[in-house]
Parts: sequence; structure tokens; C-alpha cells
Amino acid sequence: MSGNTFGKLFTVTTFGESHGEALGAIVDGCPPGLALCEDDLQRDLDRRRPGSSRHTTQRKEADRVRILSGVFEGETTGTPIGLLIENTDQRSKDYSKIKDQFRPAHADYTYHHKYGRRDYRGGGRSSARETAMRVAAGAIARKYLAARGVEIRGYMSRLGPLEMAFKSWEAVEQNAFFCPDAERVPELEAYMDQLRRDQDSVGAEVTVIAEGVPVGLGEPVFDRLDADIARALMGINAVKGVEIGAGFAAVAQRGSEHRDEMTPDDGFLTNNAGGVLGGISSGQPVVARLALKPTSSITTPGRSVNVQGEAVEVVTKGRHDPCVGIRATPIAEAMMALALMDHWLRQRGQNGEAG
Amino acid sequence: MSGNTFGKLFTVTTFGESHGEALGAIVDGCPPGLALCEDDLQRDLDRRRPGSSRHTTQRKEADRVRILSGVFEGETTGTPIGLLIENTDQRSKDYSKIKDQFRPAHADYTYHHKYGRRDYRGGGRSSARETAMRVAAGAIARKYLAARGVEIRGYMSRLGPLEMAFKSWEAVEQNAFFCPDAERVPELEAYMDQLRRDQDSVGAEVTVIAEGVPVGLGEPVFDRLDADIARALMGINAVKGVEIGAGFAAVAQRGSEHRDEMTPDDGFLTNNAGGVLGGISSGQPVVARLALKPTSSITTPGRSVNVQGEAVEVVTKGRHDPCVGIRATPIAEAMMALALMDHWLRQRGQNGEAG
Amino acid sequence: MSGNTFGKLFTVTTFGESHGEALGAIVDGCPPGLALCEDDLQRDLDRRRPGSSRHTTQRKEADRVRILSGVFEGETTGTPIGLLIENTDQRSKDYSKIKDQFRPAHADYTYHHKYGRRDYRGGGRSSARETAMRVAAGAIARKYLAARGVEIRGYMSRLGPLEMAFKSWEAVEQNAFFCPDAERVPELEAYMDQLRRDQDSVGAEVTVIAEGVPVGLGEPVFDRLDADIARALMGINAVKGVEIGAGFAAVAQRGSEHRDEMTPDDGFLTNNAGGVLGGISSGQPVVARLALKPTSSITTPGRSVNVQGEAVEVVTKGRHDPCVGIRATPIAEAMMALALMDHWLRQRGQNGEAG
Amino acid sequence: MSGNTFGKLFTVTTFGESHGEALGAIVDGCPPGLALCEDDLQRDLDRRRPGSSRHTTQRKEADRVRILSGVFEGETTGTPIGLLIENTDQRSKDYSKIKDQFRPAHADYTYHHKYGRRDYRGGGRSSARETAMRVAAGAIARKYLAARGVEIRGYMSRLGPLEMAFKSWEAVEQNAFFCPDAERVPELEAYMDQLRRDQDSVGAEVTVIAEGVPVGLGEPVFDRLDADIARALMGINAVKGVEIGAGFAAVAQRGSEHRDEMTPDDGFLTNNAGGVLGGISSGQPVVARLALKPTSSITTPGRSVNVQGEAVEVVTKGRHDPCVGIRATPIAEAMMALALMDHWLRQRGQNGEAG
Repeated sequence: MSGNTFGKLFTVTTFGESHGEALGAIVDGCPPGLALCEDDLQRDLDRRRPGSSRHTTQRKEADRVRILSGVFEGETTGTPIGLLIENTDQRSKDYSKIKDQFRPAHADYTYHHKYGRRDYRGGGRSSARETAMRVAAGAIARKYLAARGVEIRGYMSRLGPLEMAFKSWEAVEQNAFFCPDAERVPELEAYMDQLRRDQDSVGAEVTVIAEGVPVGLGEPVFDRLDADIARALMGINAVKGVEIGAGFAAVAQRGSEHRDEMTPDDGFLTNNAGGVLGGISSGQPVVARLALKPTSSITTPGRSVNVQGEAVEVVTKGRHDPCVGIRATPIAEAMMALALMDHWLRQRGQNGEAG
Repeated sequence: MSGNTFGKLFTVTTFGESHGEALGAIVDGCPPGLALCEDDLQRDLDRRRPGSSRHTTQRKEADRVRILSGVFEGETTGTPIGLLIENTDQRSKDYSKIKDQFRPAHADYTYHHKYGRRDYRGGGRSSARETAMRVAAGAIARKYLAARGVEIRGYMSRLGPLEMAFKSWEAVEQNAFFCPDAERVPELEAYMDQLRRDQDSVGAEVTVIAEGVPVGLGEPVFDRLDADIARALMGINAVKGVEIGAGFAAVAQRGSEHRDEMTPDDGFLTNNAGGVLGGISSGQPVVARLALKPTSSITTPGRSVNVQGEAVEVVTKGRHDPCVGIRATPIAEAMMALALMDHWLRQRGQNGEAG
Repeated sequence: MSGNTFGKLFTVTTFGESHGEALGAIVDGCPPGLALCEDDLQRDLDRRRPGSSRHTTQRKEADRVRILSGVFEGETTGTPIGLLIENTDQRSKDYSKIKDQFRPAHADYTYHHKYGRRDYRGGGRSSARETAMRVAAGAIARKYLAARGVEIRGYMSRLGPLEMAFKSWEAVEQNAFFCPDAERVPELEAYMDQLRRDQDSVGAEVTVIAEGVPVGLGEPVFDRLDADIARALMGINAVKGVEIGAGFAAVAQRGSEHRDEMTPDDGFLTNNAGGVLGGISSGQPVVARLALKPTSSITTPGRSVNVQGEAVEVVTKGRHDPCVGIRATPIAEAMMALALMDHWLRQRGQNGEAG
Repeated sequence: MSGNTFGKLFTVTTFGESHGEALGAIVDGCPPGLALCEDDLQRDLDRRRPGSSRHTTQRKEADRVRILSGVFEGETTGTPIGLLIENTDQRSKDYSKIKDQFRPAHADYTYHHKYGRRDYRGGGRSSARETAMRVAAGAIARKYLAARGVEIRGYMSRLGPLEMAFKSWEAVEQNAFFCPDAERVPELEAYMDQLRRDQDSVGAEVTVIAEGVPVGLGEPVFDRLDADIARALMGINAVKGVEIGAGFAAVAQRGSEHRDEMTPDDGFLTNNAGGVLGGISSGQPVVARLALKPTSSITTPGRSVNVQGEAVEVVTKGRHDPCVGIRATPIAEAMMALALMDHWLRQRGQNGEAG
């Protein structure tokens, strides 16, 4: 593969540039008989969509996804599912400046050097817009898994310096930050407003939890469930770190503290493992956290070079989230779903059952 | 694949249980013409070997690796390289107790439920001994890359609560901890001695750095270099977290602080990105950190269940490192090398050159 | 993968049913810098298109392909190329009869039993219409290879009992049969007319030749060039046999006759090997032949069963080629191109050059 | 992958040169709980072994296979199975002549040009000896499938000009030719003796049949069962053609003749399809034929060139079968088994059951 396919048995292949004609995906390997319609995908796409609050980019995307194949009379047929979103809001803008500049912390520099060219309009393939297709494909996996008792949900656990304790899943869906504590929302809004005044951006941390995962998903040695989840989450734009369970806190833990003891009545007493032992799901909730870097596109001028190697001062204007992490929760849920779905089918293939 | 193969063009497939007859690997896709002999592999194997200090398990493994194919007249031929290490130190021990128990925080529980059985002798396939073959295969990648200017080195950056600042690569190789600061070694030894008296274990953090990586390695969207490194490192036994560059510290960073500015004379001024932008190497050093959990096998009794679902008290005796992280540095270097090597060949395949 | 992706480095993933909304493909791994526009693809699509003569199905398909991504300012960018053909000629027809019947020699029976359902409209995914996307993707590979001196061309070498000797490539393009001998065309037309009067169909043989293939493409042991070509060609609808070089005639050959001797001046003196030795291209033309079975959809009644297991008499009406092999030449060229293209990139990845 | 791995869920990776230290394989993805011992593999290895009759090479290979991992207490554990055969009969021979010559119809020429070097001792990796590991791995698949009612058997259906009708499976196992008609054996022996006197070799055709294959194996579009079988069989040394069912005879068939009609009582009335419809198994026996070219190594001098491009006359001495096809039956059975086994697991993964 050349980078745009995820999975082995449940595969998702995507295409599309930010300002190209369309975004699309092919979801291959979905078992037959899953009830599926476009609204099932649209729901998650709408949660990810920019413009859903004043704290995210104001680009208006209809983002209406079409299912072009693989579904017949309301159910999946076992054949590949073609997905398409036409790009409708492609501002005809003057890109002459950005065309030859490498914006700091962007993929401009690496795409240019890897390919000798790049579609500079809106970031091209490196745009966060590319993740729409992951969310659409992830929605299929989520629906399949949900019918088998697996629920995958995420929330923003940190916004820059502000740490949020988990209160309820209901709260998460009722604010644009995916904040799990309704009382903290005004604080987050104030923080974001200040950030905008500062012409700056900030990082975030998202937590994703899959409940109801049966014991047995994951393949030792290299295709461990946690390794594949790490790859899925690190593959999201702007992610710089991934933890499972206790994560980096495990460094300072003692063995007597970290190990999750078990009793016949209560099963595992703690979940430092984050639901994965030896690369295989243990039946506990699978818990992952991801660190997102601050949005690179800010209006505070930065030093850089251009294609000719000359010094330039870059100011990134346009419609950009001051915190890319705010929209990351649905994407993280989708990627977690894709990793679990693939291992679900693999487990069934090798061992004849999954959960 | 079913989990025991790493890579797409440079593939490593391994087999072997801790107390089985042998460990082995097949390295496929190595370009022809690389000078290679068994000593090239043995060097890294010896660095990983248990028993090299009193702070690691006292199991004596000869761990002499044999190259069975793919090398002719001192050079690789382009055909697959077969590697073998016979297991010579398999103590005939009484496993009757451990056989039916699930040791807390071990893979016993998940292997049993996934496969309906397990080779319980010494942890079977889930033993850290399995990583010997990764180190052997990684040594081939390291030698290939070294000849092209890429140097991959690691060190222990934290041992439980003790944080170590980087002083020199020379220091790293002169102590059993891979500690980069010679002055800290007595402190580490004292800490380990106390840990042993406490019948406990502790976690660790390892940092791996690849210098000389050319710009252009990595494939958007899913097969990003950082995503594949995350998978490679999270796939090492006991790893619970992976960071690239600023990692989780990026959460609290401002965009104006995080973005690595560039000037024509000095190139990148900082390296918060950790050498990867948009999933593609930028030409800066690739910097990764991994969190290792404390060794699960400790002699302090722990609550667990057995195969019949009854409560048991588990005491893990035997030869175990009180800090599995101490031996992790060569393994992390090897996995980083495998990820880079595969992307080196992929970049050359797609774009006709690498570096 | 689950069956709808071809290739390892140059990958083609397709979707689409005969009477669904659209057909599509994602071509991933195309090197950057290839000049490409929709007309490059349309040319081959038009050659494959039904309705181009009275001897093929009269379905009118506009089959206008759109390039949705991966091309910028007239050149490929290295990112995935999204292709789409909307289905415009979907007759709203009464499928109530065919819905529950298994047409003899069709995929109806196997799809139904594999998936428990099927999109019965026009054969769904098993329709020859699916091959349009292979032709479109193959056109990209052909253009890339053509610029490097590789020319891939095919012709119909047998139509039922009629065997055609190769006369010229010019002749091939000047008749609807891809017949390499202009003088035989009236005979073929008469044969087809009689076949239609007989309400019957017939098989065909297609020969594909790739000239200019450099020595060195193909990977021993399993991913041999000839093995991958065999898979590519056997994967075309209705193909029941594949030969390389002397093919089945090699069974009766003596070693002294079969072996292609070489001299310094003339190189290989014969080409019984068909351009492949030990799974690797030898620099000679790569020659393959494929056998296509007669079209299964004929109006002569046939015995079969329905979904309920009852006896039925099936008469397949509708727009069907009496010889599916007539349209197979462009598809065979495309699949040969995809196999060669993938090995071109793999060879460059492993050995740093191809040709 | 780089060519030495077969399969997606049930994967076989092999290594080893004819005159290297050992041959080996890793079989990954075998479900747990299969009773397996070395004798299970040895049986098929012995059937393939040279020296089992005076009509095959007189090289004496002990070919004792060892199982190094993945089996515990007599059953597979679900972890990778390591296989090893040490090379014991490596004659220390003078290779100085062959070293710089390209034997006609051998892989010498292509290996040299692909890799810039080759292990010339006994053909290195291109030797038929490499297939021993395929047979060993195939034996595992055969045993798994046999327990589920799938029986895979082959026979020699043509030896040069001599065509053999199928009489009984018992006959096949009672002669060194795998000839299905005991009465023809003296004729075959006489033919081979004459061939040897002529210092020449001849081709052969082998037929492989898998009975008991359930309906539903195979994945449209590219990973069809017949396409993967074609690849598996074309990937055997010396194979130049593969047919499924009617094969090339389908070219001259009418649709009314080719299509396999069905009735409720008798199921399919014929098997021109060879057990595969639309790339998916139909429940009928899967029937494949493969054409093998004559052995290239003959003592009749042939014209060739050497590494320096000079004309040479090549006479291949040494231990060579005058008909490589004689030993091909167990190899063809093994490759058919590997293809079916992989699709068995894939079908179970996607659809939850197989057979």
C-alpha cells in the first residue's frame, strides 16, 4: 500500500484534497447484512464539521456524504462501499503568496521535498478536511460494533493548560468542545476568546474509550491491538503522542501498584493496562489518550523560507481553528473504531469467533 | 498477515517461544550488496542480553545467532535472510502451579481466552525473549541505514521517579542502564537495590533518536512515518505510551511556541515536531520517547484468578528484571530502524530516491 | 485486503455495481510528475465500451470518467487519484424474475451463498461493467510505463474455433474484434451473426504482449512476475486459463527445444519463456494468453434452481455480448499494465532502479 | 512484502538456498487446537523428495523437518510455527565454470541482472529445492482442511506426448510418477529411459483437485479464488500455464455447452467451471491443471553467454530430473492447499463461517 489504506480485513482507502473536486473513500470488507444509510454516516460527519461553533473554522461545508455502492435494499451486501463528498465550498482565492512559502509546522515543506510539488490550495491532502472520510468510514465500523455491544466514545480531557475531569457522556455531546463537564464550558470559551485575541493557538488532549470490547482482539507480536490503535491515533493530523491505560504515568509506578489484580467476583480491580494485555484485549474498557499540537496556522508572523530558500515572514490568514483538538474527538473515535473493527474480523478469521 | 510480520517492503517475520526449541526470523526485502556477517547482529544482541548486569535477569543465554540464508560471499544477495537462535538454557522447571493461574498484568489471561490454551513455560510467545529476533533483524536495517548516514541511538531517560538529562552517547554505552549521564549511575544502582529489597518493580522511559534521516520518508495518510514509528514502539512488550517530538507537552504549548521556525542559514530553529511534519520526515532528527510499565513478575503476592475462575494468590518467582525498561533501549533502536528502513525502500519505490 | 485492491506499491481499489449509482476507483502510489488528464483514461475506456459495434452489448454507457484528486496543474502529485463514473444508463427494469433465480454459470449462486443476499440488478458487482474501472486505472499505469519504453498491447487470437494469426497492430485497432488480421474480419462477423441466430455464445482467446520491459521485474518466490500476471488475468471475469510464453505447449516440448538459447549478438534466439525466467523479467517481450469462457447469458433456456431450491428454466434476456471475449482485450492490457507497474515500483524500491 | 510470503491470514514465509545452511519457513495464522507433529509434514516431504525413484534426481536429502515453535503439547497454539530443514547433502563441488555462465532457460540470467550477484551453487534460491518448504507448510493447511472435509489430491495427467486418463487415487500413490493409471507406468518408464539416452528432458501436466470445498470461498474482485489459485500454481518453478475447469477448452465451447446447469436433485450437472463461479467456490470440486516446462538442465550442449557477454557453450551436469513435472504433484497440492486455507480464514473473518 502507499499510505492511503487502513486495515487488513476491514479496509478503508481514502482520496481527496482540501480544495479538489471531491473527497472519497472505499470501505472494503464490511460484512453483509448491516443496515446502513447515509444518515448513519452524516451524524458523525456533522459532529466533526467545522462551523458548528464560533470556536472552530467558519468554513461552511455541506459535507453531504453519498453512498455509491455496497448497500442494497438498506443493507450492506459484502461488496465495497463507495463514499463521496463533493467539495462545494472551494473559495476561489489568491494562493500566489502561500504557493512558494513553507508555513512553519505545516506539511508544506515535507510534501514539497517528497514529491517535488504540492497542491497548495488549502493544504491539499494534508488538510484536516481529509479526516472527513475517516469519520464517515468509522461510522460504519461503529454501527457494526455497536450492534455487538461495543461503544466507542471520546471527550476532550485537556485544552491547553485546562484539565477536565470526566463527569458524564451527556455533557460531552452538549457543547462544541466535547467537554465532559458542563460547568467548565464557560471557562473554555473565555480561554478560546483570549487565544483569538492573542492571535495564537493551543494544544489539546482527547481521551477515547471503547466499552464492551470482548477479550481476544489483537494479534501478537507486531499487530498488537494497542500498537494498531497507536498507529491509528498517531496517524491523525497534529497528534504527537498516544497513551494506553496508565500511559506515561506507568513510568513512575511500582509493579505492585500498576498490575491490575483480579478477583472472581469483581474481575479486574483497576485498569492501568487500559484494556490490553500482551497486545490482546482483556475485556476491560480500552482507554487511549492522544496529544494534539496547537494549530500551526496562526496570524502571528513567523520566520520561514520559501521554495527558493530565501527568508520569508509567514502570516497564515484564512479560516482556521485556534485549537485543532476541538474537532478531534469524532476523528479519534472513528480511528479507534476502525482499529477495533479490523481486529474483530481478524479474530473471527483466525479463531472463529469474536466476542 | 497474522501479527508476526513487520513492514511492507523490508519485512521481518518472527517465531519462537521463550522455552521452545528456538527463536527465528526471516528478513525479506533487504537490498543486495550489503556486507553482513553474524557479528553484525551479535553486537546488538549482546547489548540486549539478560545477565549482562546484576540488575537484569540472571538467565544465561548464549544467544548466538546464525544466518542461514540470503548472504553469500559476505554480502546480502537480495533473497530472504533466515535467522536462528537455538534455545539452550531451558530450565526443566516445575510449571504445574503457574500453568493454571493468570499472573496479574501478564498476557496469560488474554492468550488463554484468545487461543483457548497457551505455552505457559516462561511466558511462551509473550516473553520478552521474543524481542531478541527484533534486535537481530533491526541490526540489519541499522547497518544498511548507517552506510547511508542514518544513525539510530537510544538511552534511558527516566527510571521510575529518576529523570536523566542527556550528557553523551559515550556514557550510554558504558553502563548497564543505557543511562546518558555517568554520574547518575550509582544512584540508579542504589535505587534498583532498594527495589529488589522491596520485592517490587518500576517503570522506565526510553528516548530514541534517529539522526541523518533525509527529508521525504513516510506516506500520507495512514502510513505516516510517525504513525508507523508509534506502532513499532507500542508493539514492544510493556510499552504504554509513545511520543514524537514535544509529545504530550504539546498540549500546553501555544502555536507560536510549538511551531519550528526556519531560517535560510540555520534551517529549523527548534524541533518540537520531532523530525516529522504531515507524517513525512523533515530532515531533522526523528525523536521518540516510549513509556514502559513496571515488570509484572514480582515476588510480592497479588490477587488473581485461575483457569477455573477461582481466587488465587500469585507470587511470581524466577529470573525477572525488576525494571523491564533497562533492557528496552536496544529493542527500541531496532524497532525504530525497522520502521525507517521500510519507509526508505517505499520512498525509493515511489519516488525513485531516498536521501 | 478484502478482494477489491490490486497491487502492493501501485494499488488500485475499486467499487461499484452494474446498476448502482456509480463506479469508482482509488489509484494509490502513482509517482508524482506524470502528466495526466481525463482524456488519457477515456481513450482506453472507449475501446472497452459496449455498444461500439453491433457484436457487443447495445447498452449505451457514456462512461465519462472524472479525476477527482491527485492531479494538480496537469500532473500527478503523488497523492491518491480518485476516479468516478456515474451510472447513467440504469434501465428501470423488472427484475422480479431474475431476483430469485440462479442463472447457470453466473455468480448469482455463489454471491447468494457467500453473502446471503445479492444486488441482482444487472449482475451487481459481478457484472463485466466492473472492469471499466480496471481499464481506467490501467490507463494510468500504461501512460507511466509508455514514457519509460514499455508498450502493452493485446489482440484476440481465437474466436471460438477460429484461430487468428498476428498480422499487425494497426489491424487490431481497426475492427471491433481486436482481430490482428484485417482479412479475417468478415469471417468473424459472419460467425457472430450465426451465433446470434443460434441464440448461443462462444469463448475466445486473447493474447497480451508487453514490449520494452526491462530485465529485473518480479520477486521470487511467491510474488513472481508471471504468478502476479496470472493472478491479474485470471481475475478478469470469464477467464478460465492463463499461459505465459509456450504455455501448455511446453508440456510436449523437449528441453533442447524449449530452452531459449542466447548469443552475444542476437540475445535470446527464441521466447518460449515468454519473457520471464525464475519469476523475473528477462528483457524479452512478456507474452501471455488468456482463455475466456462463452458468455453465460444466452436466450436458449437452461435448467437451474431458484433460491427456494426449486427447479426453474432460465432464459437470460437483456443486453449481452454473445462473446464476452470481444471486449476483453483492453481489460487484459490494463491488468497486465497494473501487474508490471506494481513490480516496476517494487524493483525500484528494493534495488534502486527499474529499467 | 518482497516476494517470499504467501497469503493474507494464513501466511507462509520461506527462506533458503539450495546449497545454503538450511531451508526454513514461518507459518503464521494457523488456528489453535490443530493436532500437529513433525510426521504430519514429513509424509508430504517424502512424497516430494528426490531420489525416491531412478527417474528423479539422485541427490539424497534427509529432509527431516523440525517444528521449532507454535506447537505445544501436540497442538497448535495460534502462534507462528517455525519450520527448519538443515541442508546436509551439500556436495563441495567445483562451481567455477557455472559461476560466470548463464544456463539457458535458467534464472541465472535474471537473478544476476536483478541483484547484481547470485548464489550460483545449485541454483541458489531458484532451485526446486526451495519448494520443500512449501510442501511442509502446505501439509499443515491440508491437515486443517482435511479435518473439515476438504481433500486435495493431484496426479500427473500428461508426460510430454503421453496423456493419462484418471483411473484411481490409489494408483497415483503407487508409482513414482503420480500416474493415475497403473497400466501406463511401464510406458512412462520406457519413455523416461529413452529421454535419458537422448540427453534431453520433457514437460508435463499436473491436475489438482480439491473436493469438499464449501460454497463461498474467494473474494471478488481481485482476490478471486481462481485468481489466487492461478497465482499459487504459476508461482511454482517451471510452470508456464494454469487452467481452471474447462480451461483453454472453453475457448471453443458454446455457451449452451459450457454452462453448468443445475437441478434440485443432482445439483450441478457438469463442472466446466472447475468449482469457481464469479471468483467464489461453488461447492463443486475445484479443478486446476498446470503446465510444466521441460527441465532446463540437460547435458546436450546449448548456446549461451557469460557474465562478460561472451559466447559460451553450456552443458549442465549434475543431479537433475529429466522431467521436473514428476515431482510437481505434491508441490501443486501444497500450493492449492495454501490458497484454499487462506480463503477459508478470510471467509470466516468476513462472513463468520466457512463451510
